[in-house]
Amino acid sequence: MDFQEKYNSYLNSVEQSVGAFCDRLNCKPEILNESLKYTLKLGGKRFRPVLMYAVGELLGVDLKKLENFALAIELIHTYSLIHDDLPALDNDDFRRGKPSSHKVFGEANAILAGDGLLNTAYSILLRECKKGGEYICASEQICDCAGVYGMIAGQSADLKYENERNYNEKALNFIHLNKTSKMIVAPCVVPSILCGGKYYPELKAFGENLGLLFQFTDDILDVEGQFDLLGKSIGKDENDGKFTSVNLYGLDNCKLRADLLAEKCSAILEGIEGDRQFLSKLVRFVRDRNK
Amino acid sequence: MDFQEKYNSYLNSVEQSVGAFCDRLNCKPEILNESLKYTLKLGGKRFRPVLMYAVGELLGVDLKKLENFALAIELIHTYSLIHDDLPALDNDDFRRGKPSSHKVFGEANAILAGDGLLNTAYSILLRECKKGGEYICASEQICDCAGVYGMIAGQSADLKYENERNYNEKALNFIHLNKTSKMIVAPCVVPSILCGGKYYPELKAFGENLGLLFQFTDDILDVEGQFDLLGKSIGKDENDGKFTSVNLYGLDNCKLRADLLAEKCSAILEGIEGDRQFLSKLVRFVRDRNK
Repeated sequence: MDFQEKYNSYLNSVEQSVGAFCDRLNCKPEILNESLKYTLKLGGKRFRPVLMYAVGELLGVDLKKLENFALAIELIHTYSLIHDDLPALDNDDFRRGKPSSHKVFGEANAILAGDGLLNTAYSILLRECKKGGEYICASEQICDCAGVYGMIAGQSADLKYENERNYNEKALNFIHLNKTSKMIVAPCVVPSILCGGKYYPELKAFGENLGLLFQFTDDILDVEGQFDLLGKSIGKDENDGKFTSVNLYGLDNCKLRADLLAEKCSAILEGIEGDRQFLSKLVRFVRDRNK
Repeated sequence: MDFQEKYNSYLNSVEQSVGAFCDRLNCKPEILNESLKYTLKLGGKRFRPVLMYAVGELLGVDLKKLENFALAIELIHTYSLIHDDLPALDNDDFRRGKPSSHKVFGEANAILAGDGLLNTAYSILLRECKKGGEYICASEQICDCAGVYGMIAGQSADLKYENERNYNEKALNFIHLNKTSKMIVAPCVVPSILCGGKYYPELKAFGENLGLLFQFTDDILDVEGQFDLLGKSIGKDENDGKFTSVNLYGLDNCKLRADLLAEKCSAILEGIEGDRQFLSKLVRFVRDRNK
């Protein structure tokens, strides 16, 4: 199976569990139910759950065990997109080429949709906790990555530097490691925790660097990308005075640093036994992505 | 010990654990750390955790076991206040007599502070899950009460009817039971779950009715209350076209219904063995409150 076929087979599993989740959802009032499903159903790469399945397969974890963790991570990621797109934050009217949640349902309902997805992710994780101690640890790890010492700290720092315009490398690293890497570390380490912590340090480092690479390519695409591929506004970071790797290092240096990050990810992978082929190609995929 | 002394002794325990939580909090950037603590430290009645301690004592549950559940519930309640006060939702500039979170930190930081408190509540609950199955069940119960079939459904319905102005009794019940009662049911049933489900149906019904009573008195205070006691804007519901018990039933009928709800709470309590004195007085306290 080539890379794209394998990606699609993981993606297919993710779409099935997202679809089944949406079908089961039966909230009142209707606008709440619809707003919870809307952004989830916009699709996208489903990068984080796909990554979790791939790491799980490398470690020999039964992928069935990962299903609810993958879903919870996708819900948390989706809540963060909805809140990030709000006028008070990134003020982005488009997401995956469609109007953002607040453009469709209004700001108040978008705030509640984000809150609802975050809460529902924990409803899924708390159910997993009944399966044993390693499931509780895995859930805690996701919670830490999403929380006030993780993604939320990164979003807060992102705002702070956007306002202060006091750019420096240390601050950029803090933002990228928390805002982006933490929720990419989570899908890398959950499969490890479920099999007794196998390759935990390697997978954590892999997730951190892959997250940095992901954010560098995001910053590059904000300058060079195309709206019809990316599905979100181009040049927004620049217009908003956002603190990005491109405005710290310049575009060419960013590309060089992205290459180095990709190499670092591959080097870390070398230290893990098993069929690493898909994950190696996934690193290239992130480096070369145009969406 | 009279009612007020007993209330203060529970309140003191709550303030201690909220204070210890705030002291431990060490997030970066500083504005995130401050915004997480700000609304939590505004104080207030701490009604939900006090209620949980009182129910715990009635059932003979070691109050130490309840400490983290009480804290998590207070965090969830506080996140909901911060998001409710946002301009897109209730647009309330005051909370407990002080400027609301978004007036102090700006909208974007207030959204993140709410997200952060919600996530941190689950960080606390997931840690509790390691103590055993009944702790997982209790955490799930809180999550359900806070979620898209609970408080968030109530907030969404509240918005919907504010916009539609199609008021009816069934809708009002749905809003009150979800928006208000669910997070009052949670502190009533958690102690029960921790001692094998003792009086679960009675405590659930007690929480539901006490929640309705709480919302009725809230609606009455929005008309008759005083800003300096209540610490939030008066007459706001009316101005915003909010769907309240007062505009469905009229003020006098609301007071009558509040009396009946208080009687119903007392009647349910009669079915529970033990020293019910404090909880009986707590029902009166909710009925007669001026803040």
